[in-house]
Amino acid sequence: MAGTAGDALAIGIDVGGTNIRAGLVDDDGSIHDREQVATPDDAEARMTAMLDLVARLSERADVDRLPVGVGAAGLVDLDGVVRYSPNLDWRDAPVRAELAAALDVDVRVENDAAAAAWGEYRAGAARDVDGGALMLTIGTGVGGGLIMDDRLIRGNAGIGGEFGHLIISEGGARCPCGNRGCLEALASGTAIGRRAAAALADGGDSALRDVDEVTGTAVTRAARDGDALAVEVLAEVGCWLGVGIASLVNSLDPGVVIIGGGVLSAGSLFLDPATEAYHARVIAREHRDVAPVLRAELGDDAGLIGAALLALARHA
Amino acid sequence: MAGTAGDALAIGIDVGGTNIRAGLVDDDGSIHDREQVATPDDAEARMTAMLDLVARLSERADVDRLPVGVGAAGLVDLDGVVRYSPNLDWRDAPVRAELAAALDVDVRVENDAAAAAWGEYRAGAARDVDGGALMLTIGTGVGGGLIMDDRLIRGNAGIGGEFGHLIISEGGARCPCGNRGCLEALASGTAIGRRAAAALADGGDSALRDVDEVTGTAVTRAARDGDALAVEVLAEVGCWLGVGIASLVNSLDPGVVIIGGGVLSAGSLFLDPATEAYHARVIAREHRDVAPVLRAELGDDAGLIGAALLALARHA
Repeated sequence: MAGTAGDALAIGIDVGGTNIRAGLVDDDGSIHDREQVATPDDAEARMTAMLDLVARLSERADVDRLPVGVGAAGLVDLDGVVRYSPNLDWRDAPVRAELAAALDVDVRVENDAAAAAWGEYRAGAARDVDGGALMLTIGTGVGGGLIMDDRLIRGNAGIGGEFGHLIISEGGARCPCGNRGCLEALASGTAIGRRAAAALADGGDSALRDVDEVTGTAVTRAARDGDALAVEVLAEVGCWLGVGIASLVNSLDPGVVIIGGGVLSAGSLFLDPATEAYHARVIAREHRDVAPVLRAELGDDAGLIGAALLALARHA
Repeated sequence: MAGTAGDALAIGIDVGGTNIRAGLVDDDGSIHDREQVATPDDAEARMTAMLDLVARLSERADVDRLPVGVGAAGLVDLDGVVRYSPNLDWRDAPVRAELAAALDVDVRVENDAAAAAWGEYRAGAARDVDGGALMLTIGTGVGGGLIMDDRLIRGNAGIGGEFGHLIISEGGARCPCGNRGCLEALASGTAIGRRAAAALADGGDSALRDVDEVTGTAVTRAARDGDALAVEVLAEVGCWLGVGIASLVNSLDPGVVIIGGGVLSAGSLFLDPATEAYHARVIAREHRDVAPVLRAELGDDAGLIGAALLALARHA
């Protein structure tokens, strides 16, 4: 059950706003067993739930005291303290220290998008790439992760890689962070819904007039059914993503760019305009390889796989 | 002359469009001796000049075969090949390999702004900072350097840290790179001159009407003499710098930000608006220290000091 003898194993946990997902993961990133529970609202209950998931996975695998990696939706500092989470009532919660004390194992806690980036880099879309990758996870918001020199870049306080708040259009659309023109404000599921609602308000003709709520998902569905307004909105928002990718590639020079998250369901309707806008803006292309844009391959498992692999790869 | 016994020494060379400056530098970043020549136009003559500077410094110091670090104005790849330089006719020039072969020592070649960032981080404005720093060198253009986890971030092809081409205002002012709204297009000496010329064309009253060429230097001089239009232009361009700093800090989370380059001569007329615009846009400030903005301290020596220290600090 727990892989062939000699495999290094770890438990990866992805703590999201809806579910806590955990898996027994080997050092190739293969998931050997998994567990899931709804995320408790209460911080203490959340800790208990995480410990319970670890106990169940360990017991079934008949292994003890495996290293644990956690990807948490929120701002995680270098000590594994969740300083703040937009969706969970975690404030300065010492998640790493509490899990380590309760389990008596090495525990690593990182931002969930950073963990997902590591998962895709080591075991997913960029598993054949050496050295570096930049990942954007685009769902309701935009998460990011940066790997350079085979190391996860965490920044001074652990906020490194928050590319959702790259400012690409100063003075533009308002972002929940308070700034204007952030990548998240222009190229997220929320942005898709907002742009479509604005186009409808401008009198555009569209099947979206009949939906209850103009979300990114509704727009994607309409676009796939050939709705011209929805197609145009996806292309426009995709173009903003391309601007963000170009800004990041031109200034940081990652080896590859990986796009993940719910927006992948829009497929090439979104990613082709993004890639085109990006390619139109890559500089110094005659002096280097242009970082390719890859689609994430691990889906919802990227975070827990990456968290487990980070727990195994201490140098990173 | 060559420092007290036991000091590690290296020779740092800064190859700019106008001069090649070299220094005998110890591991604290102190310059013990220096040499300088006008930069030859010809690539072979430039190599000969660099070897000559090394020979003279080594002879006077009575030391042999010191490691050599070079900061070069241009795109330098991970093998120390200058792929391209905007101001020098270097194309795919294997500067590191040629110097290493001629001198039979370890040689490191980096982009000049990256070398300057390392110099300020280890021996200048951020010498008391651990872990990371982001530096912007603002002259005619904008150079950048990023240090994270005590390592210089070089990117996949050596272009990491080119923050002059961060896009902060998509569709905005045209940049020499071909894109619009790059930091360099909005917050450089060139941008200051261009904005002042535009303000004059709009009929603005200013002593700048009497100067031959409305350069960043001329605007700075006028601003210091109290010229209202010049002061306003510096504030406006400084504000764009603040937007760029905010975008970088919010997404990369460096420990400190260092501003260097010719624009420092404008002092607080430029840096105060920049800092104000930056502070207005820092997110998550309640959950971390806000990276302070420091003025570079090493002036024109930052590049050669940083290059020498990089030659001594191979891990970075």
